Formats: sequence, C-alpha cells, structure tokens
Amino acid sequence: MSLLEISTPATLIDEARLARNIQRMQHRVTTLGARLRPHVKTSKCLEVVRRQSLAGARGITVSTLKEAEEFFDAGFSDIFYAVAIVPDKLDRALALAERGCALTLLVDSPLAAGAIASSERCSVDVMIEVDSDGHRSGVSPESDELIAIGRLLDRGAARLKGVMTHAGSSYELSDPTSLGTLAEQERSSCVRAASRLREAQLACSEVSVGSTPTALSAHSLEGVTEVRAGVYAFFDLVMVNVGVCEPSDIALSVLTTVIGHQRDRDLIIVDAGWMAMSRDRGTQRQSRDFGYGLVCDLAGVPIEGLAFTSANQEHGLIDCSGLPEVKVDRFPIGTRLRILPNHACATGAQFPSYQAVDAKGGLRPWSRFNGW
Amino acid sequence: MSLLEISTPATLIDEARLARNIQRMQHRVTTLGARLRPHVKTSKCLEVVRRQSLAGARGITVSTLKEAEEFFDAGFSDIFYAVAIVPDKLDRALALAERGCALTLLVDSPLAAGAIASSERCSVDVMIEVDSDGHRSGVSPESDELIAIGRLLDRGAARLKGVMTHAGSSYELSDPTSLGTLAEQERSSCVRAASRLREAQLACSEVSVGSTPTALSAHSLEGVTEVRAGVYAFFDLVMVNVGVCEPSDIALSVLTTVIGHQRDRDLIIVDAGWMAMSRDRGTQRQSRDFGYGLVCDLAGVPIEGLAFTSANQEHGLIDCSGLPEVKVDRFPIGTRLRILPNHACATGAQFPSYQAVDAKGGLRPWSRFNGW
Repeated sequence: MSLLEISTPATLIDEARLARNIQRMQHRVTTLGARLRPHVKTSKCLEVVRRQSLAGARGITVSTLKEAEEFFDAGFSDIFYAVAIVPDKLDRALALAERGCALTLLVDSPLAAGAIASSERCSVDVMIEVDSDGHRSGVSPESDELIAIGRLLDRGAARLKGVMTHAGSSYELSDPTSLGTLAEQERSSCVRAASRLREAQLACSEVSVGSTPTALSAHSLEGVTEVRAGVYAFFDLVMVNVGVCEPSDIALSVLTTVIGHQRDRDLIIVDAGWMAMSRDRGTQRQSRDFGYGLVCDLAGVPIEGLAFTSANQEHGLIDCSGLPEVKVDRFPIGTRLRILPNHACATGAQFPSYQAVDAKGGLRPWSRFNGW
Repeated sequence: MSLLEISTPATLIDEARLARNIQRMQHRVTTLGARLRPHVKTSKCLEVVRRQSLAGARGITVSTLKEAEEFFDAGFSDIFYAVAIVPDKLDRALALAERGCALTLLVDSPLAAGAIASSERCSVDVMIEVDSDGHRSGVSPESDELIAIGRLLDRGAARLKGVMTHAGSSYELSDPTSLGTLAEQERSSCVRAASRLREAQLACSEVSVGSTPTALSAHSLEGVTEVRAGVYAFFDLVMVNVGVCEPSDIALSVLTTVIGHQRDRDLIIVDAGWMAMSRDRGTQRQSRDFGYGLVCDLAGVPIEGLAFTSANQEHGLIDCSGLPEVKVDRFPIGTRLRILPNHACATGAQFPSYQAVDAKGGLRPWSRFNGW
C-alpha cells in the first residue's frame, strides 16, 4: 500500500524526521549532563517509545494509569506517573507496583502524601510537584508545605524520591531569550526545592524538570538529574511558533483526500475535518494562526497560498484564494494532501493507529491506544 | 459500581434525558409529516441508536464508512452515507451494498456521479447534495450542474434517489426568528432542487433536510420526506447558546475527580483535561463562553460561580473565585464533579465507551467506536 492507496483520513509518521527529532533531544539533554525520560502521552505508541529508549532515554513519563499499564505490559518497567495521584487511584497504581513495575508517583498535597504513606500495600517511590511558573499545579519551592509533604513521605509505604516541575507556560513564549530565562527559572526553582528538602534531612535524589521548549532552551541543567519532554518526538505548529522547530521537522501529518470544490468561494473540501485534525486551535493566539493545520503536498512540503480555515466533523475547508492563478482546479477531486497539525498530542489521539512512512515511501501500521 | 467508584475521567449518559431528547425530536418531525433519519456520528453507540429506532426513526445517517460498516454489522440496513463520496472510497462502499446493505451515497460533482454510474459492480442509490446556505458543500438548487449530475445518475449502476441539504450555518444563530427563517430556506432550497430535477424528467423521491437547530425551528416541512439530525440525542452547551435546549436537557457529561488545589489563585484542578473534554471551544464566540464546560455537582446540577477556564492534556483548571465565601475548600481532593460539554460529538469521541446512568443511579457500560 502507498500514500495514494490507503484509506483517508490517516495519520502518518515520517520515520526520518522522528529519528532526527529523537536524536536532537537526546543529544541535547545528554550534553547538559542529565538523563532524558520522554513523556509518552504524545505518541502512546510502542514503536515510537522503543526508538526513544534505543537512542538513550532512561525510563518513561506517563499522564494516565492506562499509559503506565500498557507500557509496563510491553516491557517498560521504569515509569513515572506525572499527574498528582488521588487516593481513589492509589489501588490501581499500587497493583502495578506489586506486579514489579518501578512506578514513581507524584503528589502536591499532604492529603495524597498521607494516603500513600499509610497504605498497607507495597511501598512506592514518590516525587513532590513544585510550581516553578504559576502555570498549573505544585507547591512553591519556598513553602512550608513542601517540607510538610516531604516529612509525610519519609515514612510508611512512601519513599521520597525527589522533586519535579513542569514550566508549561513555556508554550506561551516565542523568543529564545524568554525561553532561556524560563528554563533557568524552572531549573533553579526545582533545585531550590531539592536543597530545602535536603537541609531538612529529607532524601531527594531526583530533580526532574522539563517541557519541550525549556529543554531545548536551557543553557545549564546544573543540579538537575532528569529532563521530561514529550512533543519533541513529533513537533507541531505550536512548537514552530514557539520557535523551537521548523515545519520541516514535524514528523506527524494527516493524509487527506479532496472530496469537493466550492469554485465560487475558491474552496476545496477535504475528508479531514475536526474529527481527524482534532479541535485543537493552539496556534490561534500565536504569531501565526495556522487554522486547522498547514497544508502540504504528498511529499510533506507546504503549499504556499492555502489556508485551512474551517472544519466540520468530517469536512475540512481549505481556502485557495491565496494562490496566484489556477486555484481549486489545481486540486482535482481525489487529490491527496498532507496536513501538519497544530498540536501533535491532540491530533494523534484522534486515531487508533499511525502509518509510519519510511525513506522509500513504504508504509507500516504502528498502533497506538487511547482512553483511560 | 456507582458514580463514586468508577475510574475517572469517564463519560456519562443520563438515560432519562436521552429518552426525553429522542422523544422530543421524533414527535416534532412526525408531527411535521416527515420521517426522522438520525445522524449516528454524535453517539457512534448501538444502545443510543437502538433507542432512536424504537422511538420511530427510519434508517440512519452516517459520516464515515466505518460507521456504515459497524451499524450494518449490528443489524441496521438502511444507511445514508451523508458525505460526498470520492472514487477512492467507492469500492469499500459498494462492498457493503453487495453484502445487502441498503446504502445510499451522496455526490455533489459530475466526477463522482460519473464514477458511480460507470461502476461494473452492484447498483446503488444516490442523493445529490444541495447547498442551501453557503455553509460548506453541495451544488446550487438553481444550477445547471444539478441537472447535469442528475442525468449522470439516471443511468448505469446509479439510481437517483433524491436531494439532500444541511443548513450547518444554523449553529451560528441564536434567536427563534432567524432559526425559523433558515429552516424555511433549507426546506425551500431542497424542495426547489427536487422540483427542477422532476421537471427535467428525473426521479427524485427523497427530499432530505436537517440539522438539530433547523429541525427544532421549522414551521413547515412541506415537500420534505426526511429530516436528519444528530446532536439532539445528547444536546450540549453550543445548542444551549443556539437556544434549542436548556442545560438540564444535556444527556452527556464527563465525570471527574478533584486532584489538587491552587489556593492562592482560587483554582481547583480536576482529572478531566482537554483529552477528556476535547479541545472543542465551540461556545467561545457565542453569547456565553462556557470555557471547557459547565461544572455540575454529582447529580448534574450546575454549580454557580465556577468557571472551567483552562485545560492541559490531563489537567482541568476550574476557577472558584466566583463563589461567595468558601472557595476551593468547598471541593476537597477526591470530590467528584460532572462537566457538561461544549460539543457532545467531540467530547464523546474522546472515549472508548460511555457509562449509562439510569434513574436509580445504576451504571452500565455502553460501548462506542472511533476511527475511520
């Protein structure tokens, strides 16, 4: 089967770009003296994560217990579940630890820390989430709460392993100076939290930071032991606007077929609507709004003058009015196009599997999973 | 298992609301003298569609060939694939017809019409798509192309069955007068197209119109034989803003658990991020922007003063600053909430199955499918 034969819409992974992206991040993190623990929430795909491991990654990061279970069953045993655990989910998590998974949990509240420590099941490693940029969750590195949680984790079934932070506000930046500053803030906040725990005679062997933009912008990772990043494997248009990749680095695309024309309005209609692209409009407030994606030819090269302006569930509307002369007739019904996504994590999740495209254009299905 | 025990995030269907919504639309369409052919793209769930059929629906509408295949395998044989077919997809569609499915295809181009008529496989019913509101696809009811396509479908393997239109711009309206006017425009455009085909001595037994807002706003369906609508089974916040339902009609919700607090910023963090809610921000430009959804208590009653302002992949951020006194502490870690979605079709698609909630609070899993 070739790109002209498979059923559309389909989601493609360019294997060469994937390999290059994996190599780039691995090299960078290794050079800065830390380990890389990739976040598998982006791909949820064994074939992708195996390549990250082979390139030198140590362990994986997950965003759901289902990811932890799926990857443990596939042979990955060093897993960090990087969303604050609640008592409701503890049984399911500890079941995995009891099966031999080296599972690390995350907390940012005394309540959750106490629940883990009081568990009568197996012991488990726990990290404390630190808020380094006011983005989402975590305790302040200067707070009394940090130490209080540390003490709760220094007993019973809990083993305090370290601290982690995620400077998610990096997605809102777009210049190297600001990104470098935020990366340093992420690093220093987390290192500071680790120092305070150690001063309180609490163990803190791991200092884990990361997001794709900060990982690619940090000048120093002094005191950091591991970096977490996810979207770098595929990259996407949001990351293009952040300034950490080019469209030619984006490894994920949606293959689509032209199914109609609205000649009066210079529109072509394709069979990739929002169900295929996802509703993610992450570039809407960035320097360049890519609509529902960047339209490329079958080789993955952007076509100037097209704008993916609108989408219904199974219809995408591409505006051809920016083309110099021949407009919709340049794309007869049946023409195949590739669309680079705004947000790889969201677009990938719309599909039950990928098609990996090798250097010779050969296709192989790579399964992924969804759900919780 | 109860709502306090199942793993979150989960998506719930309130069976009583579902039954009421199905009854309401069926009664309305029947009263106006047409048949109802529900669009199953909203639920992709056999249990839901069986209830629509038992209430009096005739046949189903699908947006993908996968939906056609899944529902045919489950015993539904009268299926209208309401997205313009392209030659690439014809083999897969005709395979279904050869297996005994009474499949109806849709075209809006001479190219696709010619491909169907020239097929050497089985014959198949075909509808012509008419553009009634400049929303998306279809040919003008006054165009020469309508008649040209009709003539192409009057021969070979094609059987011209009728005309269809979808006034999708109804989603952009919000007052009963405009909705009534658009419903009449949808009806009259499609009836006009049918008349022109009949004047040209072409068969046109079906006149199919619909969208949930126009179906609920039409004063007359004279000349129309069937109505298609989908989202009415669940309803959602976009439909609340359009003005065709109330929040208390919405049958779909996402069950979530509070996993953290940011007390300084009056935020609670829940385990329904955009992966659970979908990235659909369909209410963003409507009269009331519901953020990522309307936050309700466990009984499904909206809680005044909360705003679901932001979401990451597995984190939802709910702003409690609008509460009168006790703010985040009203929702301890572990508290369960229900979120009404902006767009039911998009939110449902994030899950592999629903949990149906009966009048006594009992839960039963209802599977759905995704993909193409």
